[in-house]
This record gives sequence, structure tokens and C-alpha cells, in this order.
Amino acid sequence: MKHLTDYLWFHTKTRRDLVNITDRVEALVARSGVQEGFCLVSAMHITAGIWVNDDEEGLWKDLWELLDRLVPVERAYQHHLTGEDNGDAHLKRTLVHHQAMLPITKGKLDLGPWEQVFYAEFDGRRKKRVVVKILGE
Amino acid sequence: MKHLTDYLWFHTKTRRDLVNITDRVEALVARSGVQEGFCLVSAMHITAGIWVNDDEEGLWKDLWELLDRLVPVERAYQHHLTGEDNGDAHLKRTLVHHQAMLPITKGKLDLGPWEQVFYAEFDGRRKKRVVVKILGE
Amino acid sequence: MKHLTDYLWFHTKTRRDLVNITDRVEALVARSGVQEGFCLVSAMHITAGIWVNDDEEGLWKDLWELLDRLVPVERAYQHHLTGEDNGDAHLKRTLVHHQAMLPITKGKLDLGPWEQVFYAEFDGRRKKRVVVKILGE
Repeated sequence: MKHLTDYLWFHTKTRRDLVNITDRVEALVARSGVQEGFCLVSAMHITAGIWVNDDEEGLWKDLWELLDRLVPVERAYQHHLTGEDNGDAHLKRTLVHHQAMLPITKGKLDLGPWEQVFYAEFDGRRKKRVVVKILGE
Repeated sequence: MKHLTDYLWFHTKTRRDLVNITDRVEALVARSGVQEGFCLVSAMHITAGIWVNDDEEGLWKDLWELLDRLVPVERAYQHHLTGEDNGDAHLKRTLVHHQAMLPITKGKLDLGPWEQVFYAEFDGRRKKRVVVKILGE
Repeated sequence: MKHLTDYLWFHTKTRRDLVNITDRVEALVARSGVQEGFCLVSAMHITAGIWVNDDEEGLWKDLWELLDRLVPVERAYQHHLTGEDNGDAHLKRTLVHHQAMLPITKGKLDLGPWEQVFYAEFDGRRKKRVVVKILGE
């Protein structure tokens, strides 16, 4: 069994952002030498998530519109009593989900024709990590 | 380590549909010979998802009602500027999530008593694939 | 390849509850002897989920407020025609998601600094199970 663990670092310029990380994950798969296996991509900070969807700017706007509609930025979140102001970011991570498991087949990510992997930042302003863990043979 | 990769194809009659695929996935687990492992079920098209819940028609209606309430079909999605008309489908995939990881124990899917695995189609009208990847021993 | 499968049982006092299970999962990882691998935590009952987020009471209230706002407890769910009264619980499991995959690195859960793993009960009143399946080397 082979395995590889690595961490991708992000420090987005804007507080909320989507970053296409498909190529970076694919490069780690190549480096792992795993031909058949699983590749977990999981946001380690609790105000960020992983989104597998279309690389299309209009859709990104639709995603933000949906998330802001369901979980408004400005709202009297109980979490803000701690001094934080990112209650919405924790909940947006919940709805988008914080991770995805990518299959590896014949040494490559076995994604659908339009599937791209995005890091979804809901509350930037500091360096954050994503763990990529690959396991297989 | 054993592994098996297969693809389930769907071409639903209606644009939106739920298809119980538990038996088909269970058959692949049996074919893999894996006794202890993981079985990933992941929708490869970005307007479809995987849902693990109850095999009960009333609940299915409740799911559609919720999804249409949160993500209406008719709405001025930015994604539609590309000529597409399925913005809602991309976002519904996001909320339902596009994949599930099923544990395999003693050669069988280790599901709860009422857990059933569904393919959730949010925008049919063409053939679509789900990847099933099994890894274990 | 090593593997360990175990089940955590829950019988919460209140119908809806969040239970921090990070330590119990970590103990199973230690018992498994796996140094590099994956640990699946998945709610087997279809009115419960798994949530990976902050161990902060204000945020928990925000989560319940969000879920009750999107999926009200009192609503004429079709599922209730079966005699059940937990339609909201099935849908809340869907939005929170019912499982998480935790990476194991150097024999420990490879979580972010604030990531904690919670069992999310949306409809208690009986004993319920979570499967923990660990695979690796």
C-alpha cells in the first residue's frame, strides 16, 4: 500500500473566494505513484470548504448568492458573542461540505468531464490549510 | 489489497428523479471480493448527487419541496448567461452532496437498517455516470 | 493492511442534540494501530448526521437556528402520512450530511486546530448507531 499526505496553503486576497485546485491535487496524485486508490481533500479550517462543480464564473456567483441568501453575512449570530464575526462562514462550510473524496484510477483523478475541485474560502484574512491524503496501490 | 472500479449509467425519463441504486452497488461489492473496505459512490456529472436516506415516497416529495424552496427552478441564475438553463441543478447537487462513502464489513455494505442509496438526478435529458470505486481486502 | 470497525451508540436525553465524539473516535484510531489511513464516521440512522466544526456553544445555537429556519419542525411533510413526525430530521441530516472521512497521519486524527467531530441527533428517543471504520497500514 502506498500513501502520501500533503497540505495546500491558502491566503486569499478577498475574504471570500473560490480557488480551482484540481491541477495541484492531480500533481500530488502523480507524485504519490498510486494507480488505484482514494484521494481525500479536506479543509482543515472550519470556515472553509471543498466544492466539486463547474469551472464557470456565472455559477460561482449563483453559489455565493444562494449561500448569502440562506446564511446572510449580517445576522445576529450567537457565535459573535465570542468576539468573532464569521458565524456565517462556519454555516456556509456546513452547507457546501468541507471535503470530497476523489477516486484515482490508472494513476489519475477519475473525475467527470466537467468536475473541477475548488477550495471555498468563506472567511480569509489568514493562512489556511487543506489536507490532501492519498491511499492506494 | 483488492480494488474494483465500475460506472453506473443513468438516463432518467424525467428531468428530475431519484433512483434507488443500493442493490446495484451491493452487487459490485460482491463482485469485488472485498471483505473489509470502503465503497465510494460519486456522481460524475455536476447536476446530479448521491443521497443516503429512507426508501419512502413521501419523504422524496419532501426532499424535492425543500430543494425547490431553497433553490427555485425558475430564477435568473448567472449560469444561464452561458445558454444553460440548469443553474438550480448545480446548486441542488451542492446541498444534497454529490457522493457518499459506504463501509464494507464482512463482504457486505455496512448500512443502517433504513439506509438506502439513491442517485439524485437534477437535470436529466442525457446519459450520465456514477463512479463506484471499491478498495479493501 | 489493517482495519477496525466499531459502532458508537447514542441515546440522547433531548430529541435534538450535538455530541462531541472526537475523543471516542481518536481512541478507536489508537486501538486500530493504523498509522496512515482513513477513518470513516457515518451515522447509520437516517435522522442523524455528522458535523465537523467548532466546539463553541454559540455556534451550535446558530446551526440549530439555521436548520430550523430552512427545515421547520412544524410543517405538513408528506412523510408524516406514514404516521411519522420526523420529516424535518431526515432533511436536516441531508443538509448537514451524514458522514465525514477523517485522515489518519502518524497514528492520529489529522484534523485542523479547531476541527471537532460531532454526532448530530435530529430525532432522538431511541438508541442509535454510528459506524466507525478505519483502514490503513
